[in-house]
Amino acid sequence: MEKKRPNTAVLLMHCPDKPGIIAVITDFINANGGNIVYLDQYVDRVNGVFYMRVEWDLDGFGIPDDKIADYFNTLYAHRYDMSFKLSFTRKPQRMALFVSKMSHCLYDILARYIAKEWDVEIPVIISNHPDLKIVADQFNIPFEVVPLNKDNKKEMEQVEFEILDRFKIDFIVLARYMQVLSPEFINRYPDRVINIHHSFLPAFVGAKPYHAAYERGVKLIGATSHYVTSDLDAGPIIEQDITRITHKDTIDDLVKKGRDLEKIVLSRAVEKHIQRKILTYNNKTVVFN
Amino acid sequence: MEKKRPNTAVLLMHCPDKPGIIAVITDFINANGGNIVYLDQYVDRVNGVFYMRVEWDLDGFGIPDDKIADYFNTLYAHRYDMSFKLSFTRKPQRMALFVSKMSHCLYDILARYIAKEWDVEIPVIISNHPDLKIVADQFNIPFEVVPLNKDNKKEMEQVEFEILDRFKIDFIVLARYMQVLSPEFINRYPDRVINIHHSFLPAFVGAKPYHAAYERGVKLIGATSHYVTSDLDAGPIIEQDITRITHKDTIDDLVKKGRDLEKIVLSRAVEKHIQRKILTYNNKTVVFN
Amino acid sequence: MEKKRPNTAVLLMHCPDKPGIIAVITDFINANGGNIVYLDQYVDRVNGVFYMRVEWDLDGFGIPDDKIADYFNTLYAHRYDMSFKLSFTRKPQRMALFVSKMSHCLYDILARYIAKEWDVEIPVIISNHPDLKIVADQFNIPFEVVPLNKDNKKEMEQVEFEILDRFKIDFIVLARYMQVLSPEFINRYPDRVINIHHSFLPAFVGAKPYHAAYERGVKLIGATSHYVTSDLDAGPIIEQDITRITHKDTIDDLVKKGRDLEKIVLSRAVEKHIQRKILTYNNKTVVFN
Amino acid sequence: MEKKRPNTAVLLMHCPDKPGIIAVITDFINANGGNIVYLDQYVDRVNGVFYMRVEWDLDGFGIPDDKIADYFNTLYAHRYDMSFKLSFTRKPQRMALFVSKMSHCLYDILARYIAKEWDVEIPVIISNHPDLKIVADQFNIPFEVVPLNKDNKKEMEQVEFEILDRFKIDFIVLARYMQVLSPEFINRYPDRVINIHHSFLPAFVGAKPYHAAYERGVKLIGATSHYVTSDLDAGPIIEQDITRITHKDTIDDLVKKGRDLEKIVLSRAVEKHIQRKILTYNNKTVVFN
Repeated sequence: MEKKRPNTAVLLMHCPDKPGIIAVITDFINANGGNIVYLDQYVDRVNGVFYMRVEWDLDGFGIPDDKIADYFNTLYAHRYDMSFKLSFTRKPQRMALFVSKMSHCLYDILARYIAKEWDVEIPVIISNHPDLKIVADQFNIPFEVVPLNKDNKKEMEQVEFEILDRFKIDFIVLARYMQVLSPEFINRYPDRVINIHHSFLPAFVGAKPYHAAYERGVKLIGATSHYVTSDLDAGPIIEQDITRITHKDTIDDLVKKGRDLEKIVLSRAVEKHIQRKILTYNNKTVVFN
Repeated sequence: MEKKRPNTAVLLMHCPDKPGIIAVITDFINANGGNIVYLDQYVDRVNGVFYMRVEWDLDGFGIPDDKIADYFNTLYAHRYDMSFKLSFTRKPQRMALFVSKMSHCLYDILARYIAKEWDVEIPVIISNHPDLKIVADQFNIPFEVVPLNKDNKKEMEQVEFEILDRFKIDFIVLARYMQVLSPEFINRYPDRVINIHHSFLPAFVGAKPYHAAYERGVKLIGATSHYVTSDLDAGPIIEQDITRITHKDTIDDLVKKGRDLEKIVLSRAVEKHIQRKILTYNNKTVVFN
Repeated sequence: MEKKRPNTAVLLMHCPDKPGIIAVITDFINANGGNIVYLDQYVDRVNGVFYMRVEWDLDGFGIPDDKIADYFNTLYAHRYDMSFKLSFTRKPQRMALFVSKMSHCLYDILARYIAKEWDVEIPVIISNHPDLKIVADQFNIPFEVVPLNKDNKKEMEQVEFEILDRFKIDFIVLARYMQVLSPEFINRYPDRVINIHHSFLPAFVGAKPYHAAYERGVKLIGATSHYVTSDLDAGPIIEQDITRITHKDTIDDLVKKGRDLEKIVLSRAVEKHIQRKILTYNNKTVVFN
Repeated sequence: MEKKRPNTAVLLMHCPDKPGIIAVITDFINANGGNIVYLDQYVDRVNGVFYMRVEWDLDGFGIPDDKIADYFNTLYAHRYDMSFKLSFTRKPQRMALFVSKMSHCLYDILARYIAKEWDVEIPVIISNHPDLKIVADQFNIPFEVVPLNKDNKKEMEQVEFEILDRFKIDFIVLARYMQVLSPEFINRYPDRVINIHHSFLPAFVGAKPYHAAYERGVKLIGATSHYVTSDLDAGPIIEQDITRITHKDTIDDLVKKGRDLEKIVLSRAVEKHIQRKILTYNNKTVVFN
């Protein structure tokens, strides 16, 4: 049995905290016939910021989709100095995967995709190496090799942009893609490129974190998923986790144990993004339940 | 009923890995009437180093305590290019606590001490502030205030050395002692000063790690216990752990959650040290089970 | 510097989910001059239940303390079929500790108490054994020995009730108190007796869970804090945690590792209770952040 | 570059603890030209049992493979009352997967298989439902549907035995296979059938553990991999792990969070089995590092 597609609007917003904001917005939704199916809010009392995610059923909602943002702007955004993002769940988002040679994150994502765990479409996989075409073929997903390297990044990214546009991509997941994106790339997809870094950031920024962890003799290794910004490995952190290691673990053991961390941490972050449960502010994330 | 004190020798050693080392040493112990009560070994096959901890009952052992090291040296240490440390459990080790103003690590240690969880004596607590004298008094432990600061460190450390000598201190635990030790201090107690740092090192070295963690927006906070060396927060790591946080946690929440981490992580490290289960090598630790 | 005592009202409530409840209640508070300092709500969409915790400043609030519940009842409780609990933070709650012979949970709680981590008073410690009087004396807390056992439970509990009444106790923490309370006791303190059980319930209910865990060969041990009900170890769970063990751990090792779990898990639960952040419903807890 | 296949012997043994066993066995291996590449031993001092795993290179070893067990038996097994298992790594073991309808554990295993993380062959996947044939086809692995149910178990298991024999299967992994095996099946594959149960056993034995966990209101859910024995969910535990949940999690959320636990816990257990690092004794496991 095919599950009926959701038909809801999702509002992610933040503004200076004032009394009555929840009431105002829920009243607006209720008054126009919207049935709220999710509401979570959080007040940062230290900095005086109010954050909310509210989702409501559009069946029977009296305002057409393309007017809702207008209404919000006019009625509330100025009045409350509110930043908001409105999205609709009627159509699944379109996600592109960037990979290099390692398959563990790719398989973890595709296995969830094929099992319909996520409400997303994956129309294309892009790689700077041909190695993982075999995986894309298993899942019948177009695989585009863009042989980008340090010297041809500018031109090759243009090729990538064309592909991303052609496939109408909403957001990008770097599933152990071992290249740094240009500022131009990042600016085209603000808060829409998710990376997995194989350390508990901010420790071990940059290349070869498992080697660095081994050298330092840490007793934990970690993985961090974050939105990509122009500072290397310094974007808003979405999710982190760690696993214990001991003096007995070689670098190879760290790499092996790390793979399981990386794939789970990345997939948790991707899921939250798909569910539109992440709000970024001041280079940090608010992640709703 | 008083538990009978142990009467064992503990050998911690490492050397280039060669076949037959375990056999040679266990033969030596067995042949001289020693009953092995613990043996754990570990081979670092990447670097070709053999590590072992062996503990045997001295009741009935044929070699007097003060000759055992000699025998080892003569028979094996040169032959195998072995570094070893021999110690005896007949008398408990003597541990000094250094504290400043925060009591959570201090209470955690003293509660274990009073409940006789550890085979250790705590003859003195030293502090640069008088605040925690009340705790020392509760447990009837001498409390020495040494008002050390950046400007008088040299002289005040001499006072500390005198106290440490007077109380015949074997090793030192910095239980949230907020001062950096001088190189001279560290050289007097190599691998014998244990610190707790309130971050998952090497992230957030130095002062105010919870503030830094909050600023960076991490989703985990950690604590690290390590031997103190002359590089700040860079000594051999003994134990680390983390706890999850969310965007809802303020700096105060991090401090509060961190306290529980700090005290448990520090106490785990102190226990391993008391049990003589830690071997340091190349600025890393081998921690036996 | 003495921190100013809070002066807030805390409303914990649940009712069948309907649109607009948050608005109604926040409007009521705002309209009467109350400044909301905390609001968290949760909708159980499966069972259609709405839960909320709201806390507001009473300075300047227009309704006297002893009338607030009346207003709520009259205006909202019937209309929304609401169950609610109203409390005031002006005076700290009074907590009694019940102990037997083990000191680790007791010390952990008293160390937090003395460091003023918690807004609570501990006017009395009750025990069926005299062993821990020494700890109570360290902290200058009255210690009452009530030598209860299976045969005299009825009479001895009357003695306990008298003590609890005399000290005006609000809630009770069983800090490794090894006796089962009578139904009469439990009925006097519904959702007001917190226990720590040394297993991850519902595994290993009853006596000697570490022995049972050892026999079963589990790879994790746990601890569970819960409100006491008339079914042994079956009350609403407040908090649980686990730690990893291996085949190398003896029963003594489990007991030792378990102690750290028990004290932290119990203290986390006690803290949430003190903060009035726990709501019970259908033998389960809603624990607010 | 193809990695050279290992050519080692692995000895897993246990016996009553006596001095000198390590020396005797390592001497035997060294004396016959074997180079030890792994040695780990563990003494259960409570029960007086010695456990060891030793692995040595067979290149240059003076005793032919098919005589080694004989030598061991004659020289040591009787003398030390030793139980041992000898195996050779020259050929990868052959693993059969049993599945039903859920794909997450299956994909996790196949992704590791295809990436050559494990030294194993998977010649066949067996299922009581046709649903996952599509996954088997992606990886070009024969998929055999054996429509076993409660009423035809005896006959259908005969079909399974024929398949297992035909594919020369060494051990079996139940990757969320939702059927109970008959005692006859289990007796054919002692300590060679690995199951994943979706709870932290011994809590929530049997069907629908996530529903039971939800009803009980636990704050953790778990997964347990174990060898299958004739008692349901009561065989030797190989690996367990948990993840935190809150009152906000519905049964669907538990199922979703549980999937990640299940696949990782099962894969960790399978890896240890492939590496021949698990020894069972008294319905418990010794799992070497």
